[in-house]
Amino acid sequence: MTLEVLPLLGIGAVRPGDEVVDVLAGALEPLTPQDGDVLVVTHKIVSKAEGRVVEVTGDEDSFKRALVESEAVSIVRRRGGLLIAETKHGFICANAGVDRSNAEPGTMILLPEDPDRSAHRIRTKLQRRIGIDLPVIISDTFGRPWRRGLTDIAIGVSGLEAVVDLKGTTDWTGQELHVTEVAVADEIASAADLVMGKAAGIPAALVRGYEGPRGEGRGRDLVRSPEEDLFR
Amino acid sequence: MTLEVLPLLGIGAVRPGDEVVDVLAGALEPLTPQDGDVLVVTHKIVSKAEGRVVEVTGDEDSFKRALVESEAVSIVRRRGGLLIAETKHGFICANAGVDRSNAEPGTMILLPEDPDRSAHRIRTKLQRRIGIDLPVIISDTFGRPWRRGLTDIAIGVSGLEAVVDLKGTTDWTGQELHVTEVAVADEIASAADLVMGKAAGIPAALVRGYEGPRGEGRGRDLVRSPEEDLFR
Repeated sequence: MTLEVLPLLGIGAVRPGDEVVDVLAGALEPLTPQDGDVLVVTHKIVSKAEGRVVEVTGDEDSFKRALVESEAVSIVRRRGGLLIAETKHGFICANAGVDRSNAEPGTMILLPEDPDRSAHRIRTKLQRRIGIDLPVIISDTFGRPWRRGLTDIAIGVSGLEAVVDLKGTTDWTGQELHVTEVAVADEIASAADLVMGKAAGIPAALVRGYEGPRGEGRGRDLVRSPEEDLFR
Repeated sequence: MTLEVLPLLGIGAVRPGDEVVDVLAGALEPLTPQDGDVLVVTHKIVSKAEGRVVEVTGDEDSFKRALVESEAVSIVRRRGGLLIAETKHGFICANAGVDRSNAEPGTMILLPEDPDRSAHRIRTKLQRRIGIDLPVIISDTFGRPWRRGLTDIAIGVSGLEAVVDLKGTTDWTGQELHVTEVAVADEIASAADLVMGKAAGIPAALVRGYEGPRGEGRGRDLVRSPEEDLFR
């Protein structure tokens, strides 16, 4: 019942066109992946491999502003240089996911087009490579209202339930009084971040011993629909 | 660099007046606590031991409503039976932390009066008992805007930094563009929840291998001040 979180070491720079599965398979090898392990990958290396990187032209601030507006479907809050926006995936986050950190100089990184598809692709290709079906979580770092500091959450999921209903009831809505649904994929992403760290250059981790349900959950399951949401 | 999360097993019912440190010391023993381990305790057993339990009188729904209003300093949202309220600690959560789950029949559980003080008390008393200074996090289960499912977060902290600034800059405000501050205490609480589970009756876990800074962080550090907050 012990959970272990193991960092994937030795992953260098990833560039557009790289096969992220090759990179991950190499770094996984020393950890001897086992059935039941869950692989958490920060979206940065996935976005880079998928070519979701743009070269900055002209003034960086204006360029970024325009890029954020093009990635956003709506602006939720704006203060100074900070823009909280909803992406086409339904995520509400700073700068619609456009980020300069961990980007090559002169570039900015976008979120994957479809993080659930990316997770599924990594999972199936990796299974062919290493012979084990590892559930995959693609993570990103989000802020949240009311609380200081950022935490890692799951934006793409393949191979496990993202939200687990403890009571076996069908639906949790804004009206529900009792704890029923746990955002386990977000909790796993947060646990993984504790060994990765943004500064340490470790973009993936393996979580061993998680006993929650597998299945075909998606990162999209973690996005609350506007009708259920008291905060839009 | 591997992180381990170990559940504390065999903790039974905790009642008002129980010494929670005795309960924890007994359950810690088989895990052989080490310097550097972090102890995560769900607030439920802390609240119970501290007598933060009330007996329901009259109609349960009306009683709960009145209790929530008395625990709240302001109501943030209201829909049907659900009330999102700010507590006097500054937490914004469902029902101002008043909860029936894991409560004895006919009772409701409140948040500790001062979760940071509770964490500090457990840490110092436990150190006298077991001879090791374990940082302590008191956790609770909160919902969040925009995302489905609940995650565990830190409401009380003693002995480690709750928010870690990766860039060494002083302040993160709403204006800051870059990732600087990580809510590590919340991430540790989430990791612990993965082995505890609300249904499994495991109210505490030991996190081994977390290498982040110790120090005198507090759960209060995780509460964003209204001036910095874009969402009040």
